[in-house]
Amino acid sequence: MTGAESILQTAAAAGVKICFANPGTTELDFVGALDKVPQIRPVLGLFEGVCTGAADGYGRITEKPALTLLHLGPGFANGIANLHNARRGRTPILNLIGEHTTWLRPHDPHLNMDIASLAGTVSDWHREISAAETASSDTAEALAASLYGQVATLIVPADHQSAAPPTETISQVDFSFQSPDEDVLAHAVTMIGEAKRPALILGHRALRREGLAAAAQIQAKTDCALLMTTFPAYFDAGAGLPILQRIPYFPGQARKLLARYDAFLMAGASEPSAFFGYAGGITSYLPDKAPCLRLDTRKQNTAVVLEELSSLLGPDVGPAELRRLLSQCAVPDLPAGPLNARNMCQAIAALQPEGCIVVEEGISSGASSYDYVPCLKPYCQLTLTGGAIGMGMPLALGAALAAPDRRVIDIQADGSAMYTLQALWSQAREKTNVVTVICSNRKYFTIELESLRAGNTAPGKAAKSLLTLDQPALDWVNLSRGMGVPATSVNTTEAFIRAFRAALAEPGPYLIEVVLE
Amino acid sequence: MTGAESILQTAAAAGVKICFANPGTTELDFVGALDKVPQIRPVLGLFEGVCTGAADGYGRITEKPALTLLHLGPGFANGIANLHNARRGRTPILNLIGEHTTWLRPHDPHLNMDIASLAGTVSDWHREISAAETASSDTAEALAASLYGQVATLIVPADHQSAAPPTETISQVDFSFQSPDEDVLAHAVTMIGEAKRPALILGHRALRREGLAAAAQIQAKTDCALLMTTFPAYFDAGAGLPILQRIPYFPGQARKLLARYDAFLMAGASEPSAFFGYAGGITSYLPDKAPCLRLDTRKQNTAVVLEELSSLLGPDVGPAELRRLLSQCAVPDLPAGPLNARNMCQAIAALQPEGCIVVEEGISSGASSYDYVPCLKPYCQLTLTGGAIGMGMPLALGAALAAPDRRVIDIQADGSAMYTLQALWSQAREKTNVVTVICSNRKYFTIELESLRAGNTAPGKAAKSLLTLDQPALDWVNLSRGMGVPATSVNTTEAFIRAFRAALAEPGPYLIEVVLE
Repeated sequence: MTGAESILQTAAAAGVKICFANPGTTELDFVGALDKVPQIRPVLGLFEGVCTGAADGYGRITEKPALTLLHLGPGFANGIANLHNARRGRTPILNLIGEHTTWLRPHDPHLNMDIASLAGTVSDWHREISAAETASSDTAEALAASLYGQVATLIVPADHQSAAPPTETISQVDFSFQSPDEDVLAHAVTMIGEAKRPALILGHRALRREGLAAAAQIQAKTDCALLMTTFPAYFDAGAGLPILQRIPYFPGQARKLLARYDAFLMAGASEPSAFFGYAGGITSYLPDKAPCLRLDTRKQNTAVVLEELSSLLGPDVGPAELRRLLSQCAVPDLPAGPLNARNMCQAIAALQPEGCIVVEEGISSGASSYDYVPCLKPYCQLTLTGGAIGMGMPLALGAALAAPDRRVIDIQADGSAMYTLQALWSQAREKTNVVTVICSNRKYFTIELESLRAGNTAPGKAAKSLLTLDQPALDWVNLSRGMGVPATSVNTTEAFIRAFRAALAEPGPYLIEVVLE
Repeated sequence: MTGAESILQTAAAAGVKICFANPGTTELDFVGALDKVPQIRPVLGLFEGVCTGAADGYGRITEKPALTLLHLGPGFANGIANLHNARRGRTPILNLIGEHTTWLRPHDPHLNMDIASLAGTVSDWHREISAAETASSDTAEALAASLYGQVATLIVPADHQSAAPPTETISQVDFSFQSPDEDVLAHAVTMIGEAKRPALILGHRALRREGLAAAAQIQAKTDCALLMTTFPAYFDAGAGLPILQRIPYFPGQARKLLARYDAFLMAGASEPSAFFGYAGGITSYLPDKAPCLRLDTRKQNTAVVLEELSSLLGPDVGPAELRRLLSQCAVPDLPAGPLNARNMCQAIAALQPEGCIVVEEGISSGASSYDYVPCLKPYCQLTLTGGAIGMGMPLALGAALAAPDRRVIDIQADGSAMYTLQALWSQAREKTNVVTVICSNRKYFTIELESLRAGNTAPGKAAKSLLTLDQPALDWVNLSRGMGVPATSVNTTEAFIRAFRAALAEPGPYLIEVVLE
């Protein structure tokens, strides 16, 4: 068994089922080994950002790591932006990077780069394998690290991939969450007791069904408010769950919301603060002097921490009492009128099927989708965790492969889509059930808004040229068909409703270009 | 004058004329400042790899730095692959990266990354600006560094972009090449005298007209062989120049060529060695014990070094004597027969106009273009310096903007093209005279070849799925039109000749998909 095979066998033994790959000459032993480890399905991406974004989407749905297989420093660099989103979203991922054969590196071959420095910027854990003998144990350690919601990266020199060590032991992954911290939870109980208007800020694992159930009990017992982070990796949504208020993006709105509360407990979330450094110098969004406490660490299971806190706050309330706190199904009517972002989001909300996965990278155009979250049929939504645009189409690919029986809807800004449009080809090749809704406003509208907010109310020709996507307008129907995904373009609300309904009714990928007013 | 304006004014005063940009919220002061510094033309790329590759193409043609303007760590990371090529090709570039406002960074905003670590992997020089006051002097220093053929990177926090220091001095760029090293050149004269079959390996600046003229004189005086590096950033080519033999890519062929010589002088080139670590352990391509000497350093002008060496070797030979060493024009006939890579390259060679710029990222399909180099009408060719694929279409964009009166021909592998296909949109928007020839073999053929060479003669289903670009086939006509570039697809040699002739006759960009046998 070669080093490459032992790495894949270790991953397969740990339950890894998929590898998003764009290999080159220094990954050929991995390519050959994939033929010998059929438990792991290789999926080709035609750009590395597709592979890393797909691994992020897969990990968000399954909470299990996918592999990526990337070529040297430049290949890995192409995947960094979406790994940044994965790291911010705490998605488990294991990147495998082929590195030059060790004895060639002193000669600085032309693709040579400082891969460890690149890997360090987006990996919570990274290591270069020093021999084929340790390939399996290094892999097991990397996988264990990933399971805490971390990006792990193994750099594997080509000679260690091809070497066949005499022993063939496959290491087991040794992973478990740490127990909740009793002192922290006792402190939390005191804080809630002393506060007049406590709020619980939920992020990450707290936004999955189990965490939300515990949060609902805490709310029932303490009357605390439930808030959610602005850009969570994943949240379970729809009727029957507690109603969470999302912390707004812009500082003024966020601070206004948070000023209502006088104590903050955070689960799967850190202190909410500004995304950019706006004039006025706002950093934290929390009101001054309000006590705040982080309930969990990265190594604890946030849902378990919330359950423990709930039990410290008293016996659970019964289903009938709980029900009055939970959201009711109230799907909106189909919209009529002009085809703007609001009507587009309303139509999607009205038509999206139960159990679907909504990927939201609509940026300015997707904002109003959050208005419908509590009142729809149960589904889940994935958002742009790290702000590195170009996440949506790869994420939808990975999510669809993780849940082939569910429908994936990608609400996708046009400017962001252009970063990783190659994902459409993989969606076509893998026959994924993804409906991509391109929000075609033909500008970087968020940046235009930020520019206005910064006081640049009369941009000149140069500035305008950098904020608009027209001249020429992108033709998303051609782009999509060019990669094998059937597509249509619509410019009325009625046509969008028709096209979206039809797309949901058919298997396989489809793209709708929504030309927004 | 703000920090952002002082940076752009400093660049403009140094002759910088263009900025390839994909800005975000942390670059808004630069965006606004571009309206106030009209000497610098902003060109929008819809993906950062387009911006960095275009800056590389621009710098290769002009030998002057272009600016890039990139958004934080993820945006810069997207540009790394093509910066790697630029660094390997020693192209002058100045990257400007907007960074978060200094006082927000302790709060780790969601786009926060370790930009300095990213920058260090592809920059010969990088610095974070510490105050608006030093923005101009830092910029002048960065530009001076870039002029040695280096990638320079300035990280500019948003608060230093917007701050307006009381003094408004614009720093001048202090740059000059160092003189040739007389001891090294004396040693070179001795080496040539003692060698039976000396060879001069030329790379980088040695491959431009002045360097080649000096090399021709050295050849005339010493009867040394002239070789060129495998992947130079730029070489002047065509009739009337000395005939250079290109060092082959594969180790066996390279070592066979170099075994003919017993001493090696290198100008603008380092010791030729293997691109990958193949079985057999070949590193250097030079024969054992053959003396080798690098004539120049990065801080010297290679052409001047060659001229000085030539003068040490005796008086220049006259034009008549020189002429017998120089290549003659002998444009090949138009090909007939099947549409394969060889016939495609022959047709391009037969039809390419004098003074054109050929960008060669054909990978396996472009190899035979080198057969025609010496016998064509004068032109220049740019190659894939660093092996990071996805260079060609952005490079062609930048080269066309650097030389708007010249025709750019991009011989472009399909797999590589998919990495940065967004460059087509910028080609359309800027109305560049680029003809893109997509070599559509629908596979990663070079990796397939490398796999065969490594002994994997019977790849299984998994391996095959990672090396082929079919199922579905990419439709380049749709992809190109989707970004505003007119296009056609051909599958006979006659149709290709017709389409290529027509494309050369019309201004603006055009794409031809060559479906190869």
